[in-house]
Amino acid sequence: MSVKKFLNDPDDLVVEALEGLVTASAGRLRLHRDPLWLESAAADADRRVTLVSGGGSGHEPLHSGFVGPGMLDAAVPGAVFASPTALQVVAAVRGVDRGAGVLLIVKNYTGDVLNFQIAAEIAAEEGIEVETVLVDDDLASESDDGPGRRGTAATVVVEKVCGAAAARGLPLAEVAELGRRVAAGARSMAVALEGAVHPGEDVRSFDLAADEVEHGVGIHGERGIDRRPMAGAHELVGALTEPLVAALGLAEGDRAVVVVNGLGSTHLLELYVVFREVAALLEARGIGLARSLVGPYVTALDMAGASVTLVRADDELLGLWDDAVTTTALTWETR
Amino acid sequence: MSVKKFLNDPDDLVVEALEGLVTASAGRLRLHRDPLWLESAAADADRRVTLVSGGGSGHEPLHSGFVGPGMLDAAVPGAVFASPTALQVVAAVRGVDRGAGVLLIVKNYTGDVLNFQIAAEIAAEEGIEVETVLVDDDLASESDDGPGRRGTAATVVVEKVCGAAAARGLPLAEVAELGRRVAAGARSMAVALEGAVHPGEDVRSFDLAADEVEHGVGIHGERGIDRRPMAGAHELVGALTEPLVAALGLAEGDRAVVVVNGLGSTHLLELYVVFREVAALLEARGIGLARSLVGPYVTALDMAGASVTLVRADDELLGLWDDAVTTTALTWETR
Repeated sequence: MSVKKFLNDPDDLVVEALEGLVTASAGRLRLHRDPLWLESAAADADRRVTLVSGGGSGHEPLHSGFVGPGMLDAAVPGAVFASPTALQVVAAVRGVDRGAGVLLIVKNYTGDVLNFQIAAEIAAEEGIEVETVLVDDDLASESDDGPGRRGTAATVVVEKVCGAAAARGLPLAEVAELGRRVAAGARSMAVALEGAVHPGEDVRSFDLAADEVEHGVGIHGERGIDRRPMAGAHELVGALTEPLVAALGLAEGDRAVVVVNGLGSTHLLELYVVFREVAALLEARGIGLARSLVGPYVTALDMAGASVTLVRADDELLGLWDDAVTTTALTWETR
Repeated sequence: MSVKKFLNDPDDLVVEALEGLVTASAGRLRLHRDPLWLESAAADADRRVTLVSGGGSGHEPLHSGFVGPGMLDAAVPGAVFASPTALQVVAAVRGVDRGAGVLLIVKNYTGDVLNFQIAAEIAAEEGIEVETVLVDDDLASESDDGPGRRGTAATVVVEKVCGAAAARGLPLAEVAELGRRVAAGARSMAVALEGAVHPGEDVRSFDLAADEVEHGVGIHGERGIDRRPMAGAHELVGALTEPLVAALGLAEGDRAVVVVNGLGSTHLLELYVVFREVAALLEARGIGLARSLVGPYVTALDMAGASVTLVRADDELLGLWDDAVTTTALTWETR
């Protein structure tokens, strides 16, 4: 008996959810099949840089919820926690290119990196200009060898800033450079209170004792830095945030965009308690809270836990952040 | 050992979360203490009807996430799953009244009804014009005697429509009448796959077997109609939606606003699968899908489950629905 979820056939989950999303979008999104990718149906037809991102499903609203004016032109969904194929990515790149080039935003996982790279090469051979921004913000996975830091919640900030830059009509090289600058100035750390349950399975992806947490967990349940005793929010959040401040070298007078991200089943009340602790920590150090997001933006199925992302901010980045965006998961008028 | 959550002292959860929300709002929200209530800090100062809602905490983003231009002027939070006091409500009414009267939007629970009623009487004695809209959409709790249907996710639709009507400058009696019409045309039904855990406690509020669900559950975990076998999404959602269609007498050619609401820990992928089933059911019956919301809007802490709300729609209601709104949890430009 699998753990209870709203499912028909687990193999159909991703496609059925996308069908639901497209129906709910009332014409704002369009689904392509064989291969599968999701496109913004906004009427804007400027010759401008377009943006494609994607990755394994199970992290919603990432990436499908960020398709729309001011952010992504297309999202390419894999199966749950599995990379999309290169052919899916190529189809999206072909579909959204308007002659000004396509930016690929890729989270740093072996499968995603490989498949997006193959897609970029195929597209380049077809004469489509392509640049790639790699997002690798997860400080817990930093090491001297191996695949490098994993890509997690900073992806939302990269997608927002690059989407705004593309909407302003900046050329591909500049949009890509902005994305790399945001990614380079972003670090995240997550803590899990409970593991996730994959659709159709009957156990959590990992088990934690009633009095321990997984500090530095990845968004697919990858092991973190260590298991630690459960503690109050103040202590848990300090342990997430202090290493980010140190890694980015943030000091008095600097400014940061803060994302407090729910990993799945953590309640909004708790996420605001987490945010309050982050804000207090930054204030105590004289670091400016430039902008913030609080909510489930990059989930790990129904994992209980949260991540904190800090992004070094400057006027250019904040100006782009404030530009209008109209997607399912992020919408604002020019601020 | 309590179940792990991001908490400092559980008694401080609600206030700390509100502090986090206000900090994240960057000046858009203002918190009042002694008594506790949350106010929109938007600069708009028209002489117009203002809206106050509230109720127990633990349902976020309801109500705090819906404070802002085009929706609520104030939210009055109680402790988790407990009504705010009449004095909190009175303070909010006094604070937001601009001489054109105040609309109270109240979910149908004994404590809330009583405390908002006392507040309305006190405010009226002070010369403030007050009207109340009672939201009682939960079909599972319909009975010939007792307190009547509980108020659940239709509250979001009532708050949105009344907020738009107030922003348009309609008089209090008309705003209240609109709210009553929306509430009368709205029915909801929820199913729980797992119970919730209260902050600081160590067990779920109710236990379900691995192969059963609570059909017709309330947003505080109140018992529903019966316990049923776990089933696929198609069957579960049909069992929620068909009684709503019947209760509202929706027939071919009618239109409905649909809210598919996550009760807490249910993933967005699943909610879109649920929505897909609702949309297919309506389409098969020739009922128009006028507008929709899919996401966690009225939660029951971290309960696993979902509710479906149908609201009978007409051009006036949809026009108000489409008006601009700028809150933490619901934002769009005029559609």
